[in-house]
Amino acid sequence: MFQLFAAVCISFIGMSCSSSVSSEAVYPEEAVLENIFARKSVRSYLDKGVEQEKIDMLLRAGMAAPSARDLRPWEFVVVTDRTLLDGMAFELPYAKMLTQVRYAMVVCGDTQRSPMWYLDCSAATQNILLAAEAMGLGAVWTAAYPYEDRMEVVSRYLGLPEHIAPLCVIPFGYPTAPEHAKDKYDPSRIHRNIFGEQ
Amino acid sequence: MFQLFAAVCISFIGMSCSSSVSSEAVYPEEAVLENIFARKSVRSYLDKGVEQEKIDMLLRAGMAAPSARDLRPWEFVVVTDRTLLDGMAFELPYAKMLTQVRYAMVVCGDTQRSPMWYLDCSAATQNILLAAEAMGLGAVWTAAYPYEDRMEVVSRYLGLPEHIAPLCVIPFGYPTAPEHAKDKYDPSRIHRNIFGEQ
Repeated sequence: MFQLFAAVCISFIGMSCSSSVSSEAVYPEEAVLENIFARKSVRSYLDKGVEQEKIDMLLRAGMAAPSARDLRPWEFVVVTDRTLLDGMAFELPYAKMLTQVRYAMVVCGDTQRSPMWYLDCSAATQNILLAAEAMGLGAVWTAAYPYEDRMEVVSRYLGLPEHIAPLCVIPFGYPTAPEHAKDKYDPSRIHRNIFGEQ
Repeated sequence: MFQLFAAVCISFIGMSCSSSVSSEAVYPEEAVLENIFARKSVRSYLDKGVEQEKIDMLLRAGMAAPSARDLRPWEFVVVTDRTLLDGMAFELPYAKMLTQVRYAMVVCGDTQRSPMWYLDCSAATQNILLAAEAMGLGAVWTAAYPYEDRMEVVSRYLGLPEHIAPLCVIPFGYPTAPEHAKDKYDPSRIHRNIFGEQ
C-alpha cells in the first residue's frame, strides 16, 4: 500500500506537465487515483469532433452516480446546435468558451422527483468530468443553479419544462494544449473526531 | 475507441460478481470508467482496520474536486472514536451502519467561504466514493444536509462551529462480501439540443 501511495504521489508530481493520465498499462487503483488528481477545468478547445462513443460514455458515467433514495433525478441534454451554443455563450457570464466548442452537456434535475436533485446531479457532474479527463477530453463545470438568471437562460434555450432545473453547463472537447492540475491538498482542512483537532 | 467501449461494456457485465475493479494491469482509460461503473453503496462492513495511507488518499481525493471560483469550501472530519460513531448511529435515521465501522468521513462545508459549498462538497464526496471503490473499500453517502435535525446531530457530536455545515457522513471500511453495482443507464434521460428530443 505504501508503494501505491508513493507511486501515485510521484505520478502526481510528474503529471503537472501532462494533459491526462498516461496511456501505458497500469494498475487500476493507481489509474483511478491519478485521474482524480489529473482532472482540471479546461477552458480552451480545438475545433475538432468528439467520437460518439465518448459522448455516450460521458452519459453513462453521469448515470452511474449515487442518488438519494436511488431516485436518479437527472436528465442530460447534449447540445451540438451552433445557434444554441453561441446564444448561451452570449447570455451566460461564465460560459463564454461555449463559442469554441462543438459540444456541451447540460446536467439537469427533476425537482419533482427529488428535493435533493442538485446534490445527486453534482455527483453525476463529477463523474462526467472524471470520465472526460480519462478519455483525453477537456471539460469545465459552469454553474447555472443556484443563479435564477442563468437558469432562466438555459431553460429558455433548451426548452426545459418548469420542473426541470439546469444545474450546470459543461462545454467539452479536445483541449488545445496540456494543462496543469492544481495541487489543492491542504492538511489544515483535516480534523480528527472533533472539529479543530488535528 | 469502439474497442474501448466494447471492453468497458463487457467488463461492466462481468463486474456484477466482483467487488471492485480487477487488480490486473489495464489501460488507465478503461480502469477509470470501470471504476465509475463499479462504485456502489456498501452498507455491511468487516471489523477490520483500514491502512492510514488509504485514509490519506481519500482525503486527497476529496480535495482534488472542482469548486465554484476555486474557493474550496470543504472541511473533512475523520471519525474513529467509538462513542462518536455509535452516538451518531443512534441518532441518525439512515446511518445505522456506523455501529459496524471503525471509520467515517464527514464532509463539511464552510458556509461563509462559499454560498455553493454543498455543490462543491458533493463533487468532493463523489471523488471520495470513487477513490474508496478503487482501493477495495466500501463506503456510502448518508445525508446530513439539507435536513436540519440530522445536521444538528452531526454538528453536536463533532463540535462543528456555527458556519461549518455537514453535508454527509460516509461510513467506510472493508466490505463483508462482494456487492453488485446497479446498471442505471436509461436512454430516456438523454435529450438532443432541446428537452424531449431524442
